[in-house]
Amino acid sequence: MKLPDVISSPQSKRIKNAAKLLSRRGRRAAGRFLAEGPQAVREALASPDAVDELFLTEAAAESHPEFVAAAQDSRIFLSIVTEEVLTELASTVNSQGVVAVCRTLDVDLTSVVTKDAQLIVVLSQVRDPGNAGTIIRLADAAGADAVVLTSSSVDVYNDKTVRSTAGSLFHIPVVIGVGLPEVTELARARGLQVLAADGNDAAHDLHHPWETGLDLSARTAWVFGNEAWGMRPEDLEVTDASVAVPIYGQAESLNLATAAGICIFESARNQRM
Amino acid sequence: MKLPDVISSPQSKRIKNAAKLLSRRGRRAAGRFLAEGPQAVREALASPDAVDELFLTEAAAESHPEFVAAAQDSRIFLSIVTEEVLTELASTVNSQGVVAVCRTLDVDLTSVVTKDAQLIVVLSQVRDPGNAGTIIRLADAAGADAVVLTSSSVDVYNDKTVRSTAGSLFHIPVVIGVGLPEVTELARARGLQVLAADGNDAAHDLHHPWETGLDLSARTAWVFGNEAWGMRPEDLEVTDASVAVPIYGQAESLNLATAAGICIFESARNQRM
Repeated sequence: MKLPDVISSPQSKRIKNAAKLLSRRGRRAAGRFLAEGPQAVREALASPDAVDELFLTEAAAESHPEFVAAAQDSRIFLSIVTEEVLTELASTVNSQGVVAVCRTLDVDLTSVVTKDAQLIVVLSQVRDPGNAGTIIRLADAAGADAVVLTSSSVDVYNDKTVRSTAGSLFHIPVVIGVGLPEVTELARARGLQVLAADGNDAAHDLHHPWETGLDLSARTAWVFGNEAWGMRPEDLEVTDASVAVPIYGQAESLNLATAAGICIFESARNQRM
Repeated sequence: MKLPDVISSPQSKRIKNAAKLLSRRGRRAAGRFLAEGPQAVREALASPDAVDELFLTEAAAESHPEFVAAAQDSRIFLSIVTEEVLTELASTVNSQGVVAVCRTLDVDLTSVVTKDAQLIVVLSQVRDPGNAGTIIRLADAAGADAVVLTSSSVDVYNDKTVRSTAGSLFHIPVVIGVGLPEVTELARARGLQVLAADGNDAAHDLHHPWETGLDLSARTAWVFGNEAWGMRPEDLEVTDASVAVPIYGQAESLNLATAAGICIFESARNQRM
């Protein structure tokens, strides 16, 4: 296969346009975001129409001929760039010389919170990109129907978030920019129970749900709050019940992503029993 | 309370000695390590004889009079330092002006893998400090008896590991520097089943244990492998059985800490049913 000429100038128009996607503002204006690294880009290429443009270093084009072929098959604009130019778009360590410009993927709330939805994961005021990405990956693994990030949460198209999803961003529908009350109201109207994960004064214990009348096999929207302060009182008010992961030892709490993993998989387990 | 004079020179002997603990070599030579941030230091001070020396900025001494009092009560050497000097010992963002020199805490394998141990967490070739720390915190939260880091795992006294444990390093016994076969042999001799968490070709499914004769309520040593390549064949061989967290969606895998959380809490749940 004939490769295009190598772009060696960071001043190239294509590079400068793609680099704008490093900021939230640039992503919003273009409706595009960057995915870096072979794993993310492989998943992006497998997702119909997700990739708009592909940047590879010469070394990456050599070790990943399948990316070159996919670009040619799908008429995706392919640029071969120097290592130095690639650093304008991504951390070279994580990207391994592979960066894709992708179309934003978020969908409407009403398209995912339906009467068939079994498990929805809602992030309310989650601010750490790594946590958000890890929970999207967890939700995908648990077979959840969708992930919703409320308007005050981290940008799902942030490079760290995209990387932490390990490709799951291209598997599971994501909704952004909605208020928590809007989500919980629709979930309830569609017959889902709305559970808040809350370490403090929760009404229910995840490991002893029946003792307090909680049915974890029911269709559920799980709401996870901020990593530092958890759920605010006004956010708890729009949920149906609060549930705590029991702490059997001396730790004060769990970190957000591990607590979310335990809750989400406990619902997935109960729903399949 | 009268505070000592402020140390403003990074060349001060106390500071230079403490800064040596930033390297693994220095920690090993001194049998000491650094804990940073109010949460970790609070837990360290609550642990008998754990703290050797305490460094506070003036601002931190003012906002945490309890640390000054604890140092005086326990005859812990207290130094008040400038912000600049503190950066020689810690990232100021995470430390919030609070750093303690602590005595290393690791204990003998035989003291924790006993005939009464219910749940032991073993990290084999885990290399990421954040993952190791998060799993120590999880093990503490789940009420596990101990965490064992095999000799090829990350240093438990690394600043990032200590920070990720969020104080749990001072709650739960930790064993370091042993080989995996030594751990699994002793665990088996003490009547624990040895389970390997393994995403690929596992014999058992964490959510359907009975179908393949796995009893998750039994006394268990869980072994978690490297974040990239998982468990090596020779490591799997010294365990009794491999268990996978079921993947219901399209994700290829879970990250190590979230998978460990799901496994550890599933054992804790079954053991308490």
